[in-house]
Amino acid sequence: MALNPVTPDIIARLQGALPASAFREAAPHYLEEPRGRWAGQAGVIVAPETVEQVSAVIRAAAHDRVPVLPYGGGTGLVGGQISAEGTAPILLSLERMRAIRGLYPEENLMIVEAGAILSDVHDAALGADRLYPLSIASKGSARIGGLLATNAGGVNVLRYGNARELCVGLEAVLPDGQIWHGLKRLRKDNTGYDLRDLLIGSEGTLGVITAATLRLAPRPAGEGTALMVVDSPTAALALLSMARDHMGEGVSAFELMHRAGLEFLAETLPDIRQPFADPPEWFVLIDVGLARGLDPATALETLFAEAFEAGLVSDGMIASSEAQRHDFWEVREQIPEANRRIGSVSSHDISLPLGAIPDFIARAPDVIARIGAFRINCFGHLGDGNLHYNVFPMPGRSRHDHMDERSAIKQAVHDLVDEMGGSVSAEHGIGRLKVADLERYGDPAKLSAMRAIKAALDPFGIMNPGAVLRAEAI
Amino acid sequence: MALNPVTPDIIARLQGALPASAFREAAPHYLEEPRGRWAGQAGVIVAPETVEQVSAVIRAAAHDRVPVLPYGGGTGLVGGQISAEGTAPILLSLERMRAIRGLYPEENLMIVEAGAILSDVHDAALGADRLYPLSIASKGSARIGGLLATNAGGVNVLRYGNARELCVGLEAVLPDGQIWHGLKRLRKDNTGYDLRDLLIGSEGTLGVITAATLRLAPRPAGEGTALMVVDSPTAALALLSMARDHMGEGVSAFELMHRAGLEFLAETLPDIRQPFADPPEWFVLIDVGLARGLDPATALETLFAEAFEAGLVSDGMIASSEAQRHDFWEVREQIPEANRRIGSVSSHDISLPLGAIPDFIARAPDVIARIGAFRINCFGHLGDGNLHYNVFPMPGRSRHDHMDERSAIKQAVHDLVDEMGGSVSAEHGIGRLKVADLERYGDPAKLSAMRAIKAALDPFGIMNPGAVLRAEAI
Repeated sequence: MALNPVTPDIIARLQGALPASAFREAAPHYLEEPRGRWAGQAGVIVAPETVEQVSAVIRAAAHDRVPVLPYGGGTGLVGGQISAEGTAPILLSLERMRAIRGLYPEENLMIVEAGAILSDVHDAALGADRLYPLSIASKGSARIGGLLATNAGGVNVLRYGNARELCVGLEAVLPDGQIWHGLKRLRKDNTGYDLRDLLIGSEGTLGVITAATLRLAPRPAGEGTALMVVDSPTAALALLSMARDHMGEGVSAFELMHRAGLEFLAETLPDIRQPFADPPEWFVLIDVGLARGLDPATALETLFAEAFEAGLVSDGMIASSEAQRHDFWEVREQIPEANRRIGSVSSHDISLPLGAIPDFIARAPDVIARIGAFRINCFGHLGDGNLHYNVFPMPGRSRHDHMDERSAIKQAVHDLVDEMGGSVSAEHGIGRLKVADLERYGDPAKLSAMRAIKAALDPFGIMNPGAVLRAEAI
Repeated sequence: MALNPVTPDIIARLQGALPASAFREAAPHYLEEPRGRWAGQAGVIVAPETVEQVSAVIRAAAHDRVPVLPYGGGTGLVGGQISAEGTAPILLSLERMRAIRGLYPEENLMIVEAGAILSDVHDAALGADRLYPLSIASKGSARIGGLLATNAGGVNVLRYGNARELCVGLEAVLPDGQIWHGLKRLRKDNTGYDLRDLLIGSEGTLGVITAATLRLAPRPAGEGTALMVVDSPTAALALLSMARDHMGEGVSAFELMHRAGLEFLAETLPDIRQPFADPPEWFVLIDVGLARGLDPATALETLFAEAFEAGLVSDGMIASSEAQRHDFWEVREQIPEANRRIGSVSSHDISLPLGAIPDFIARAPDVIARIGAFRINCFGHLGDGNLHYNVFPMPGRSRHDHMDERSAIKQAVHDLVDEMGGSVSAEHGIGRLKVADLERYGDPAKLSAMRAIKAALDPFGIMNPGAVLRAEAI
């Protein structure tokens, strides 16, 4: 179905519905994405202040069959927020809807607008002695609406779940402009189809999320962090299992890292404090938050002793201060920045059944070596079975030297992941970058249901066309 | 859209696709429901053994536009499994698909077929030293497929979530007969729309769940249970908050009960051990499962002492043996059976924002008293904001004396719930009993999206017609 460009007529209609302050200059950040792979386009950029204004924009777009691109913090890694081709859309930024509409510490809930920045939401929760546990590297710029639209993950999913599990209600504008008022403060509500979870993760293709009721968590009585050197990914999994036997849900994060991460940090970010004098091949960061009556440092020491006895760990250190906890986390959190500075040839956000991870880590270097000589930095959220498996040029070479090999590497890694029962997008989503992957690896029945749902809710195909599903295939 | 009855032609088609053993006699249990409110009808009853056979049934039904009623354990309380009017359906029982296809204790996952009985799933998990935490009163007959189709809740939602949160993958047959192979063992998988959560809770109206990948939990190192007498629902909420401050996720269940529950038990089930010599007006059952290093009895004693100091609790007892834990739970778990024996005039499965619960409990008796003189038994999953608010005849009278007042009571209670931001179906679903409630209280934009999704995935309206959405309104 052909979409129409933004015309003076549609701009006039938008000017009638929105205050002048809602119209934005085409600042570069709206049209860039973090890895610099595409440049975007926009027919007009609007930033409404209310859900009614968002509804007015969508109604106008539906009336004239003009595409709409919802825009959050612009931090997505798969191009869901960038329209590089096709009809230039109305870019609908949620940046001015950032209010915290309500904070209910006794209910462990908070109602925030879609434009609220993740770190501001963290701060507001902490101000009420609560946690909003979703945490990702881009927390200083990612916005709640985008985090929900992409079902963001991050470092605390093991304990607290993805963005999906941390949301109990939504307010959203559907593709015909109707406002869904679904911001109830309820833990249980079995009244009809789960529209909330359908919109979460649909990447703006089924509507625009304008506000959400978020789950908060009580702050654990005591927190602690350790780095432990493991002999292998298999040992890391056994350590995870042992940690959960000891501490149950108290294990908040369990992150696997490889020596390559330390080397990349040393090369690109020398100010980061290196934790090991002699960098080990594999190590894990364990973060725990325990109930009253348990001392995190003691619990981590007990775990280490038992794991050492069992031959799972050979070395380790337990943070003795908040500053040291921060240093340990800094190693993990700056690895993506180090990767960016090295410049990956191809990066893969994959998940696998936990039990298949050692085998994958053993087999993947061979399929890559068949294509050429590369460095690999494998790290990630081991507790969730989610690895960031990123492939880099050898020292002295650049990603630009390998553009011809990029798609072969990607397909070789993804084919192996698929063969082993994994997912080719664990937490980043499909966006525009992985549309062909979804078609290649997705279940045909699920794809056909997705296309039917898209056509039913967005018959003109105006919402973020080309993301998730190929626009012409709907 | 008119549906066709089961004809000799369609039976012949089914006989061609299914072995003779798949055809079932019309035993009474297929056509009854637990509260005896409706009698069902079926044109033919089939029980396939494989997902391919389920697909063949659905393809035949879609071809001839014959309705299909998926049938699990028959324990639903809102008539989702009973076709009392309209065209008699193919009743599709999952009872012969009850295999445990895989058990992965190290991954805390298990793949089971839809016909597996909940208590068998519990046992299989325990055999691997794990918990499948979903637990409801009908666990001896409810089946996994129905539990997922209705997003069942129960006593452990506070800690572990509903059926929805305990499922990471599905195998299902869609209304056109396509099989969706979605049984991956992944915690994170952001590849396209969340079809899993759309099917979960759709009560068989969008397809038939045939198998699921279920989440398991490690068994807590130590468990404990207490009954504590609270001064009021407000005090109960403060106690919940204090318990979670002490023990975090270690609080597995937090159930509120009223003296009426004890009185009904004494009247109808005198063999149940009464916990209190002098029955209090309000009391709670607290169940905890703690990590290593914490003694549950000590933790509960510490909680009680602090709550007593704060004036929240006046009396209590902590189970000193597994037998006593069982006795405490027996009180809670037999209240629904006592209610059934007394015979409710109207029962309400409602949820409210936690903070609104005391006000609701204060106001609801007045709206009921305006209709007549009744007894109320209010109990439920306070930690989830979920009350079972059931209205009974006065002693010496029967529910049959009050049939004229039933709908007025229901509406008065539901109107109050809705006014206070609650849900008129917290965990039981819509079925056929609450279709009008959904129309009355549901958000119009959500309802319109639901109808569009139903029409898109099931254009002939064959899947469980009349459940959730009025058949003629789709």
